[in-house]
Amino acid sequence: MKLLSFRIAGREAFGAVVDDGVVDLSNWRADVRTLADYIACGAYLDAAEHVEGRPVIAALEEIEYLPVIPRAEKIVCAVRNYLDHHNEAVAAGLNRDLSEFPPIFLRVWRSQVAHNQPIVKPHCSDTLDWEGELAVIIGVGGRDIAEADAWNHVAGYSVYNDASVREWQFHAKQIAAGKNFEGTGAFGPWMVTADEIAPGRPLKLLTRLNGEVVQSSDTSHLIFSVPQLIAYASTIFTLVPGDVIVTGTPSGVGLGRKPPRYMNPGDVVEVEIESVGTLRNLVVEQD
Amino acid sequence: MKLLSFRIAGREAFGAVVDDGVVDLSNWRADVRTLADYIACGAYLDAAEHVEGRPVIAALEEIEYLPVIPRAEKIVCAVRNYLDHHNEAVAAGLNRDLSEFPPIFLRVWRSQVAHNQPIVKPHCSDTLDWEGELAVIIGVGGRDIAEADAWNHVAGYSVYNDASVREWQFHAKQIAAGKNFEGTGAFGPWMVTADEIAPGRPLKLLTRLNGEVVQSSDTSHLIFSVPQLIAYASTIFTLVPGDVIVTGTPSGVGLGRKPPRYMNPGDVVEVEIESVGTLRNLVVEQD
Repeated sequence: MKLLSFRIAGREAFGAVVDDGVVDLSNWRADVRTLADYIACGAYLDAAEHVEGRPVIAALEEIEYLPVIPRAEKIVCAVRNYLDHHNEAVAAGLNRDLSEFPPIFLRVWRSQVAHNQPIVKPHCSDTLDWEGELAVIIGVGGRDIAEADAWNHVAGYSVYNDASVREWQFHAKQIAAGKNFEGTGAFGPWMVTADEIAPGRPLKLLTRLNGEVVQSSDTSHLIFSVPQLIAYASTIFTLVPGDVIVTGTPSGVGLGRKPPRYMNPGDVVEVEIESVGTLRNLVVEQD
Repeated sequence: MKLLSFRIAGREAFGAVVDDGVVDLSNWRADVRTLADYIACGAYLDAAEHVEGRPVIAALEEIEYLPVIPRAEKIVCAVRNYLDHHNEAVAAGLNRDLSEFPPIFLRVWRSQVAHNQPIVKPHCSDTLDWEGELAVIIGVGGRDIAEADAWNHVAGYSVYNDASVREWQFHAKQIAAGKNFEGTGAFGPWMVTADEIAPGRPLKLLTRLNGEVVQSSDTSHLIFSVPQLIAYASTIFTLVPGDVIVTGTPSGVGLGRKPPRYMNPGDVVEVEIESVGTLRNLVVEQD
């Protein structure tokens, strides 16, 4: 199943994609108001049943997409988690030993935008870069989750563009500043439930800028696997349903080019992940 | 005024400290459910009025404190923001140039604990360190806030113990892992509203471990001032009422000692900030 958050007629809703339309599941149970709630109560496992008998209320092109989990409690992002990306960063002068542990930083939900919403280039810098990434949505929460058990905690997969303001990312050793600009964390269009993708199956990842392929890799090149990331993060804090693990980007970012290439207003950036979907965003200048 | 979040008779509440007791303001207006809501609607400026005529419902020792803003949307923490702490870190082998920009990282609200709640030493490490810090609570939100205007966005001040698992902090270049363990971000006991402390007034800061003073400094040694931190953070994202800026720790942390000294179960750690209050926590081992 494909599950998503969206807005229609001014209200926030969640539901499932059926053919080219949307079935609203917001009225499935009164206390289940968001997709994160729906995941938390385990209902998403029976989404196919819940969809049956419910009408398609709108075509996909009629809805306003929201970030898949609009106000995720935690967005845990992996850094330098593809060997090919690590090598291009080293070549760009950002030398560093490969970490023995998964390097992570945090995004705030307010930095997120949805499929078809604009990614915002801030006034303060012209160094907005793309980073196509696989996002993992936590289904079953937990602390100290064992690697061997981690796949059982995954609700599904989505596409993330962890767009980064490089200048601000390198203001200091901590990169959080450049990774949290409002309107830069694109997340969508939907999540595909975990039953549709075998654990660890390599998924092709493509990023296109104005139609040109700028990243082309697959998730077999991850340095730290999804189970390793989940085990590591859950040693720190309790993961809860709807938490998002953003797994890192492969080579091909703008920073790695000579000269570096960045996104400008009017650019269209797409991230496509095999069996998951294509996330598309226009770049605009900050208001 | 001193405003706080607490639990009493099983329900979450917020209110004001009057003498040694608490006045409940949770029923002030139906749509104002949390201290963050109360701040967001500007009502906190009239807290003295709202308290009048309302009874003290409990003595301070009868309530269960909650983190001042229990589920803060953003907790923006400054790193190496006291010159004396920078120097001790360099002496401990962590050499680094002083940053031209405020180095920041993010905490998740789930890492927080309240005054009188235990700080939790995780199983995975014996390197839990203290970091006494001044916390600033945002009153009026905004994006691209000018330094000159920043004090107008401050609702008040509180005390933070940004307790850090050093081993995990240094797993990778990004320190978020060691800074986000569940039960390590102590925040309380209350906030003192901004009208009680002149903008930029130096405040004495003391940290005591089992009664022994381990940090003694004052906020005049901040490298990046509160207005600079607010201006910087609000360039990245919209600050909202109830967001927390944690301003960094002075010298005297355990990491800087020879040999390093860390907190163990049974230790009691207190952070006292002049005119704000004293935050006290017992250290316990993770369950």
